[in-house]
Amino acid sequence: MSISPPTLNRLCLYLRSLKRLQEDGVQQISSQKLAERFHLSAAQIRKDLAHFGAFGVRGVGYQVDELIPTLTSILRLDRRYRVVVVGMGNLGRAFASHPGFNRGPFVVVAGVDSDPAKIGETVNDFVVRDSQFLEEVTRESGAEIGVLTVPAHGAQENYERLAKAGVKGVLNFAPTRIRTIPGVPLKDVDLRIYLEELAYYLPFDDS
Amino acid sequence: MSISPPTLNRLCLYLRSLKRLQEDGVQQISSQKLAERFHLSAAQIRKDLAHFGAFGVRGVGYQVDELIPTLTSILRLDRRYRVVVVGMGNLGRAFASHPGFNRGPFVVVAGVDSDPAKIGETVNDFVVRDSQFLEEVTRESGAEIGVLTVPAHGAQENYERLAKAGVKGVLNFAPTRIRTIPGVPLKDVDLRIYLEELAYYLPFDDS
Repeated sequence: MSISPPTLNRLCLYLRSLKRLQEDGVQQISSQKLAERFHLSAAQIRKDLAHFGAFGVRGVGYQVDELIPTLTSILRLDRRYRVVVVGMGNLGRAFASHPGFNRGPFVVVAGVDSDPAKIGETVNDFVVRDSQFLEEVTRESGAEIGVLTVPAHGAQENYERLAKAGVKGVLNFAPTRIRTIPGVPLKDVDLRIYLEELAYYLPFDDS
Repeated sequence: MSISPPTLNRLCLYLRSLKRLQEDGVQQISSQKLAERFHLSAAQIRKDLAHFGAFGVRGVGYQVDELIPTLTSILRLDRRYRVVVVGMGNLGRAFASHPGFNRGPFVVVAGVDSDPAKIGETVNDFVVRDSQFLEEVTRESGAEIGVLTVPAHGAQENYERLAKAGVKGVLNFAPTRIRTIPGVPLKDVDLRIYLEELAYYLPFDDS
């Protein structure tokens, strides 16, 4: 069963919201309450979840402890994904040492850089390797996902090298457009969208 | 006119998509083509844009050069927002020196840290200041948005100090939940969602 990108994004948000509720000790929640609390649509939540066989009980709602593993499985987050980071500058390091990666489904297992000052440094549990050995590093570490935190001009070449070395997908932070190879999906990340989404809600006197 | 968070997110994506088309020299595009190219829904695009008075011409579509400034204005991105970064570690630095900030509507104008080794360093166009002077730095720099790239335990206090110093909204990268103050909206960012969205589409043999 294939999920469209917008639906997938919503399912990820539901899972995140449910985990927060679980942390708070909430055991059951209605689609209305879930929608209110996390600024979602109740009808959309019911439709999305029913599509995957998860139905709430009328008057009671969804069982948080049951829905979390169901969504985790649907989203294929019930396995481990090894990640290699290409470009150990500020963003690459931030990514590699983020407390959220290295537990849960994603683990950063390797990182490369072309800067001699960075090669050989220990970040987290790995030693930064020379980017000229990217293919070897990728194969040896068993990385399935590549993260590009390189300048724009190096992104295309590194995407292709990651693909050749066998990664199954690439997350791109470089502000450029990459021509993709069939079978190696790419996801572009632009952190400005968060500022854009925040800016609209700022309480200005003139608005 | 108030826009719900999911709609706002879609409008931001439309604007981004239209700018890409403009770069490619595309002058007109139908909702169908726009939907196909960027994995969106054509009906949703038409509904969203019509809601703000932007109608495509039948058989022709939308004028890219007209729709961009319309959306920019709707999204309140036709002004400058000054940003102060709290926590000049890897992520804070990455944010402050990102080529996408410092042109366009968002400009990082100040940064603070509590680490003596970082205080006094020049990042971009500013000198990192001691975080004990966060309120002063915020007021002096005229920052309207605060970005929290501090460890989880420092996030709540820094959010409150930013609010007291007059910022109008805060973007939080710290992996913790912040109790908000009315009138100072907060947006949480969790970079794992990108990996989650990518992971689903990885071509595994077993799937």
